[in-house]
Amino acid sequence: MKNNEVTILGAGLIGSLLAIYLKRQGLDISVYDKRPDTRKTKYFEGGRSINMALSYRGWKSLEKVGLKDQVLPLAIPMYGRKIHDEHGGTTFIPYGKADQAIYSISRGKFNQLLVEEAERLGANMHFEHLCQQVDFRSGQITFESPEGEKKLEPQVIFGADGAYSALRMSMIRQIRFNYKQEYISHGYKELTIPATADGEFAMDPNALHIWPRGKFMLIALPNPDKSFTCTLFLPFEGTKVCFDKIQDERDLESIFRNYFDDAYHLMPDLKQEFFRNPTSALINIECYPWVQGNSLLIGDASHAMVPFYGQGMNCGFEDCFILNELIEKYGDSAWNLVFEKFQKKRKPDTDAICQLAMENFIEMRDSVADPKFLLRKKIEAKLYDLYPKEWIPLYTMVTFSDMSYSEAYAQGKLQEAIMDKVMADPLITENWNKLDYEDIINQMETAKAV
Amino acid sequence: MKNNEVTILGAGLIGSLLAIYLKRQGLDISVYDKRPDTRKTKYFEGGRSINMALSYRGWKSLEKVGLKDQVLPLAIPMYGRKIHDEHGGTTFIPYGKADQAIYSISRGKFNQLLVEEAERLGANMHFEHLCQQVDFRSGQITFESPEGEKKLEPQVIFGADGAYSALRMSMIRQIRFNYKQEYISHGYKELTIPATADGEFAMDPNALHIWPRGKFMLIALPNPDKSFTCTLFLPFEGTKVCFDKIQDERDLESIFRNYFDDAYHLMPDLKQEFFRNPTSALINIECYPWVQGNSLLIGDASHAMVPFYGQGMNCGFEDCFILNELIEKYGDSAWNLVFEKFQKKRKPDTDAICQLAMENFIEMRDSVADPKFLLRKKIEAKLYDLYPKEWIPLYTMVTFSDMSYSEAYAQGKLQEAIMDKVMADPLITENWNKLDYEDIINQMETAKAV
Repeated sequence: MKNNEVTILGAGLIGSLLAIYLKRQGLDISVYDKRPDTRKTKYFEGGRSINMALSYRGWKSLEKVGLKDQVLPLAIPMYGRKIHDEHGGTTFIPYGKADQAIYSISRGKFNQLLVEEAERLGANMHFEHLCQQVDFRSGQITFESPEGEKKLEPQVIFGADGAYSALRMSMIRQIRFNYKQEYISHGYKELTIPATADGEFAMDPNALHIWPRGKFMLIALPNPDKSFTCTLFLPFEGTKVCFDKIQDERDLESIFRNYFDDAYHLMPDLKQEFFRNPTSALINIECYPWVQGNSLLIGDASHAMVPFYGQGMNCGFEDCFILNELIEKYGDSAWNLVFEKFQKKRKPDTDAICQLAMENFIEMRDSVADPKFLLRKKIEAKLYDLYPKEWIPLYTMVTFSDMSYSEAYAQGKLQEAIMDKVMADPLITENWNKLDYEDIINQMETAKAV
Repeated sequence: MKNNEVTILGAGLIGSLLAIYLKRQGLDISVYDKRPDTRKTKYFEGGRSINMALSYRGWKSLEKVGLKDQVLPLAIPMYGRKIHDEHGGTTFIPYGKADQAIYSISRGKFNQLLVEEAERLGANMHFEHLCQQVDFRSGQITFESPEGEKKLEPQVIFGADGAYSALRMSMIRQIRFNYKQEYISHGYKELTIPATADGEFAMDPNALHIWPRGKFMLIALPNPDKSFTCTLFLPFEGTKVCFDKIQDERDLESIFRNYFDDAYHLMPDLKQEFFRNPTSALINIECYPWVQGNSLLIGDASHAMVPFYGQGMNCGFEDCFILNELIEKYGDSAWNLVFEKFQKKRKPDTDAICQLAMENFIEMRDSVADPKFLLRKKIEAKLYDLYPKEWIPLYTMVTFSDMSYSEAYAQGKLQEAIMDKVMADPLITENWNKLDYEDIINQMETAKAV
């Protein structure tokens, strides 16, 4: 049946926040998710959720709907990367200025908080509703639910249904749709460093811990219960250290003692977890158009990225923020116009962050272990100090500002080329403090003007 | 039920030729196609099939299974491009040497010939069988057929089921599969130039006719019944001349009289055909892996390309030829090895031809109208004459040889860079005959050595 409702597919982080934004616009909202309601059942989603890092764009989008203060207690600030070398030594590399942090948060409670807020505002939440297809000719959407098959004809459909979006699959099958899905050679597995016997964090809680080992790495993010959620990233196959070559506990122990010895001693449940938890794949998705008729893809459904810039969720939240601005500007009856403006504005930005996320994997697993990398960050931090308007490090533009991702990307590439030249000086380690910083800025301004 | 059969999805050109190759290897073959048997029913496939151009790789693959002589009567040689300017003037640009031609052939009869040969050799042909999915865990394939649902567990499955392959869709849904589908901004529509009143060709039959108009074009290929199959390529929307802006007969007439006046006078059924025939989209598909378990994608299913290099069918036929070589080398019980070797060897080549096909669209619709283009072809032909081993024009490598597409691509890029320099001379039109051809070859050899 035809109705005036706005339908959102997906009650995940993006779908729920979108419902909150649209309820605040006074719209009739129904949200459908294929999973059971995690508040009612003990749905096990563990073992495959990398902890997330909330940063500026995410907070800004939460603040706009008055949720910042409710979310803060769930989040732990991380002020930089703590790099663990193979001998157990550590180095701290700040993310930005002393007070700038990204915030570790785990999906479960955060998602519940958003679902509850959406419901409180009057959104109708429907769980265990699997979207089977959207037919763009009839505008009809078909669900499989515990009560059988249901068909709806909503006024508007949002696909916030993630990397394996059903709305997107309908687009792939029905329209002239450009689409790319790309799996990287690495997979990941979730592991845990529990709280110590006396109930404390086993490591510094205010950092993102990285064990960079060239072609692979381990990372750890803190949780409010004083555990760390660890994620091991390895190639699936074909290299000396890869998932394929860890067949039994001896293989596992040998790799951990060899490469992650300090972490190994903090992981009492390693063997159990490793062989119980799934090995998950990492996908990058780019597609266009995001709009077909009255339907719009949003969040991971339109731009799933690899997790290495910590921007997947932040970018999806910013999608909601920007969509909301457009609705405020053009009204909530001009969906065609709003959708068209949205995809035109947003696509170059999500392309840029997808690309940056891919590039950052190499930085995290490899470059951060290079002493030159640390020096490079120091020089950039000094440039930022001296010329806070002219030179903003790329990580800062992406993480601690709401400059558009595409602008950050372009500016970052300029700065990268200049820093490559600066770092090429064989005596840079000795001379970095005597660099002609003004000249560097001038080079950058010249490059920009070209 | 489990059986020892080899299953081929698709009884199109590639599926049928593959069945012929595999029957000659003595295998048990069943072919399933979703369409009805065109020999029994009057299945209308008209209006959306660009005529094809058989060239060296295609002929070689047909010859290997003894079919060349049977196919020749269906094909008309085209020795070059005949360019039609806006005033009705024409220029002929040969494709290669005087005796080198590509052969216009239309899909219908050619496909029937291949299906009949496959059947004669003992392949079991099943029509009106729509593959719904292949389940890679169970190895089971499900068909919808006039007799209801059927499930099979073949020994091996080939997906020769084209650009919208069902086997590939199962891979997209079930495995870690890299996939890209890209629609270009242009669509196409099939039209006809019939034989003249006295039963003759209305234009030179031994050429591929092109009306290049910058952002769009019309082409025409000859048929044995003395008609030409024409294809109009226009952007779907957004430009001065596009499908969206042809809403009625007046729009159509105005565009044809403006841009294709000489053709217009040869097209008595233009108006009827234009509004009856569908406007079809053009897609480029690249994916990997092509293999999952006992299944292999082949032909358009693994690498659908835009039609502008005339290589789609030739490349699919070459797939069959190369697969057959691998079976001869490794035996028909080592499918895993054969499939792995096949995809590793073939993927860089199909990537190269997909890319070339995309680039050639600009050449066809735009560059060929430039007098400099003609001169460039002349200089390259002369280089080829003087140094037949060192300088083979790209078109010749792709069309009149079986050099791997990736090698042709690399060599073509080298030659292109050198020709760009040669053509940059403002006096080239006057001086081309006095060029230092030996020096050009030396430049190329140097570039190659780098």
